[in-house]
Amino acid sequence: MEKREEISGRLKSIAGHVKGIDGMVHKDAYCIDVIKQIQAVQAALNKVTTQILEGHLHSCLTTAVRGEDANERERVLKDVADVFEMSSKV
Amino acid sequence: MEKREEISGRLKSIAGHVKGIDGMVHKDAYCIDVIKQIQAVQAALNKVTTQILEGHLHSCLTTAVRGEDANERERVLKDVADVFEMSSKV
Amino acid sequence: MEKREEISGRLKSIAGHVKGIDGMVHKDAYCIDVIKQIQAVQAALNKVTTQILEGHLHSCLTTAVRGEDANERERVLKDVADVFEMSSKV
Amino acid sequence: MEKREEISGRLKSIAGHVKGIDGMVHKDAYCIDVIKQIQAVQAALNKVTTQILEGHLHSCLTTAVRGEDANERERVLKDVADVFEMSSKV
Repeated sequence: MEKREEISGRLKSIAGHVKGIDGMVHKDAYCIDVIKQIQAVQAALNKVTTQILEGHLHSCLTTAVRGEDANERERVLKDVADVFEMSSKV
Repeated sequence: MEKREEISGRLKSIAGHVKGIDGMVHKDAYCIDVIKQIQAVQAALNKVTTQILEGHLHSCLTTAVRGEDANERERVLKDVADVFEMSSKV
Repeated sequence: MEKREEISGRLKSIAGHVKGIDGMVHKDAYCIDVIKQIQAVQAALNKVTTQILEGHLHSCLTTAVRGEDANERERVLKDVADVFEMSSKV
Repeated sequence: MEKREEISGRLKSIAGHVKGIDGMVHKDAYCIDVIKQIQAVQAALNKVTTQILEGHLHSCLTTAVRGEDANERERVLKDVADVFEMSSKV
């Protein structure tokens, strides 16, 4: 995976953020403030996804599409379409 | 564009759906019912986007990535990453 | 519905936008440009939904919650939670 | 907050899930599999948000809307509209 360390750093930070939100819940924070923090986590996850996808397009997908294995080509293109479709449902 | 007639048919149907929602507004329909119809339109638009993207991956993107113009290759990959990023914001 | 004319105007404009996108499809526009226009329509629909919901909260929901019919109160609160849940899936 | 223990349990599980995804990144898992796991986390976060919002509507919002402080009433209604609007952007 491209930019592995940067992505890993972001994921660690997101896991910490989620734990912090759990702390807010225990301190009986205002519901709306908790929801806003969850939305911030969602935005951070979207950024990680975009970054992973960009790396994927430039590495795996490019290699497969330039390769001669038509099945493999089809598989990586379908994967990208699938994650795109799923992204509109979460 | 691949499947042009099918995509055009879906867009015409969506435009009609939006006009129907305007009719509901004029008949003072229950707000929640109007919102649910708008959400149905959003889901239909997501399907059109996925379908266009699939065609794009199999045609333009495949052609560009298999081609020898590195700038063009970069451009189409960036376009896909951009629409993916934007899709998480609408 | 509150701000009925403004909402109706937005919906008419959105229906026109969708028809314009159909025109782009027929003129064989670049797939990515078509997808970006669809995303603009979705952002506009989100604005309409938020506007309708705001009006709903201040009118129907406020009336029901201040009323003495516990079933009706429950029903309107459930409706708002439902559209919120659905909104994360489209 | 209503159902505090259940919500806290879900958040702890989500934090663990994110750490697990970080582990996948370190083991150089296939990008698309990583993205699918991130999307699963986002779906789980959406469920938590809906659950918190439901509790909020039945407690804080109901109390405020049935109360006599118009400013407070306005504030809680605006809060709900705000999280709804934000939810369409993440």
